[in-house]
Amino acid sequence: MSESSKDSRFAASGQSLQEAPRQSQLLAESPFLKACRKEKTAYTPIWLMRQAGRYMKEFREIRSKVGFLELCKNPALAAEVTVHAQETLGVDAAIIFADILLPLDAFNVGLEFVKGEGPQIARPLRTQEDLAAIPELDAADALSYVLEAIKMTRSSLKADIPLIGFAAAPFTLASYLIEGGSSRNYENTKTMFYSRPELWQALMKKLVSFSIDYLNAQVDAGAQALQIFDSWVGCLSPQDYKEFVLPYSKSLIKGLKAGVPVIHFGTGSATLLPLMKEAGADVLGLDWRVDFASSRESLQDIAVQGNLDPCVLLAEPEFIKKRTLEIMRAAKGKAGHIFNLGHGILPPTNPDNVKYLVEIVHNYKED
Amino acid sequence: MSESSKDSRFAASGQSLQEAPRQSQLLAESPFLKACRKEKTAYTPIWLMRQAGRYMKEFREIRSKVGFLELCKNPALAAEVTVHAQETLGVDAAIIFADILLPLDAFNVGLEFVKGEGPQIARPLRTQEDLAAIPELDAADALSYVLEAIKMTRSSLKADIPLIGFAAAPFTLASYLIEGGSSRNYENTKTMFYSRPELWQALMKKLVSFSIDYLNAQVDAGAQALQIFDSWVGCLSPQDYKEFVLPYSKSLIKGLKAGVPVIHFGTGSATLLPLMKEAGADVLGLDWRVDFASSRESLQDIAVQGNLDPCVLLAEPEFIKKRTLEIMRAAKGKAGHIFNLGHGILPPTNPDNVKYLVEIVHNYKED
Repeated sequence: MSESSKDSRFAASGQSLQEAPRQSQLLAESPFLKACRKEKTAYTPIWLMRQAGRYMKEFREIRSKVGFLELCKNPALAAEVTVHAQETLGVDAAIIFADILLPLDAFNVGLEFVKGEGPQIARPLRTQEDLAAIPELDAADALSYVLEAIKMTRSSLKADIPLIGFAAAPFTLASYLIEGGSSRNYENTKTMFYSRPELWQALMKKLVSFSIDYLNAQVDAGAQALQIFDSWVGCLSPQDYKEFVLPYSKSLIKGLKAGVPVIHFGTGSATLLPLMKEAGADVLGLDWRVDFASSRESLQDIAVQGNLDPCVLLAEPEFIKKRTLEIMRAAKGKAGHIFNLGHGILPPTNPDNVKYLVEIVHNYKED
Repeated sequence: MSESSKDSRFAASGQSLQEAPRQSQLLAESPFLKACRKEKTAYTPIWLMRQAGRYMKEFREIRSKVGFLELCKNPALAAEVTVHAQETLGVDAAIIFADILLPLDAFNVGLEFVKGEGPQIARPLRTQEDLAAIPELDAADALSYVLEAIKMTRSSLKADIPLIGFAAAPFTLASYLIEGGSSRNYENTKTMFYSRPELWQALMKKLVSFSIDYLNAQVDAGAQALQIFDSWVGCLSPQDYKEFVLPYSKSLIKGLKAGVPVIHFGTGSATLLPLMKEAGADVLGLDWRVDFASSRESLQDIAVQGNLDPCVLLAEPEFIKKRTLEIMRAAKGKAGHIFNLGHGILPPTNPDNVKYLVEIVHNYKED
């Protein structure tokens, strides 16, 4: 890649090439990226999973006109909802509007987002033949619309606001592919790694390689940090995680560009956190099921992100404040805390409550 | 209750009243009850959640003729499937065939078991008026069919095999009542205790009082141990559990007859276990997400039950043996371990694999 194409994202925003280093500097000094690096910040940075989502009237208006996949595949619209959410809430980072399952759309397995039922895969992967049927793809080609959305978002975002790119961790992507949708027990996935470990290994290697290219392309397109969502990893025993998942999450993270902070997040992952730490990310996402203080203490030397229960935002402001302050106090102003929910914002959430949360976190002064 | 009615369960089985104390003695010395009391046993006792269930051909045959609720309400059939499962598997305890949601059927809120969709409540509880509409019931009257099934089971079971009675913990029962079925986020339940704590408290008190009567009646009918299923408690933060759930689980357990071991079980409850221990049960159920050895060590002085992933039983015998021995070795032959799965047996499980598991546990000799 030539120098000029490397910097084209800044040129596209109307900045001159000379301004690019200044923006890099501004971004590097943003509270969010400083917290990823465990540096002291003037206030605790906050962003929220699904900060661009159905809880927002403006988002529902757009969604009333376009389907979910259509929105993901429209870079201008995806950039619009991404930037709008960041600006409306005043959060410290934007996350590109996309979906962890978009690679499956490229894999041609019949991904559909069925209203009220969530994502479904018409042709779940169960055999060596199913695996062989997945086309060899160039991730940057196959998901060029995400990269284009990242470029457009980067151009429109304020210069000091980092943009987070993301992808599913290989386990979560594999489990969707194998189960054909969300699952209660992950029987087919577990049966594959228990009984056909060589097929599982081949699948995971393929997903790791694709995801490395996809995530690195997101960095090239303009992302300053990456989040890896291992959303369904909480169904696993620590032993299964260690044997069948950790090696692949580790190679994924190892394959990512140096200098770009990686956040590793799963739900229901309390007992897996020490192993997830071994996978090598810079920041561990905590869901609300873990006690912030004791969990952080046991994880020791790593930045953490979390961990308010998204349901708390459905309560009265007074209760929101109580639970938020409990986390802020548990964090004791130590460097390396990014405030977030333990999972995505729920659709019935009042946007005013979300803004109030951002305010509490930004205005927090230690007792 | 007169002496004769108290012992009628033994008389009904054709035993004389003189034989009753001998049976009590046999039961008390059973490996299962000894393990509940943390006494040394000759081998590790094992029983399995949903040991009477759809994975068994004989059960599916009965279910092809009667609906699920109908089966629960037919004491002879319920006793038959309970005893059949214990005898077929050779496990160390039977658990009465029933459902944690049967109280909701008595509450007249429109409970239905919809095929493929799980339990649904036609009139979910959301207001003070909904709570007032729940009739004042005598639990032993309202659920007399469960008690009758326990009596019949006790008469048919081998004299040295303990029978486990059970009920839902108040949180899990309340969450079904409030959500109207199973739920992903438990938004309505959490919103009730966040925003209407007095309504939540009144509901929980009602459920605790009903459940104490129900469980004690199960003991009177012939159960030697009780399991409290807090199946959905894993959706809670430790803070929410402590504030809104623990006090009620504690009063429930406090209200149960002395001398009858209580097993307290939830899934996804790794971070709640120290608080659940405070609730006062004799045995804590562990799901497969916790590492057996470290979890047992941190819980210290309490018997534990668990914790094989039910999906392991879908694998080959060799893998089943590997994972089972890992748990047996982690238990180090210490008294106070009851082997079980981390959740119920899954419908596609091969019954031969279940029998094989029982064999491995019973024949285990320490290295």
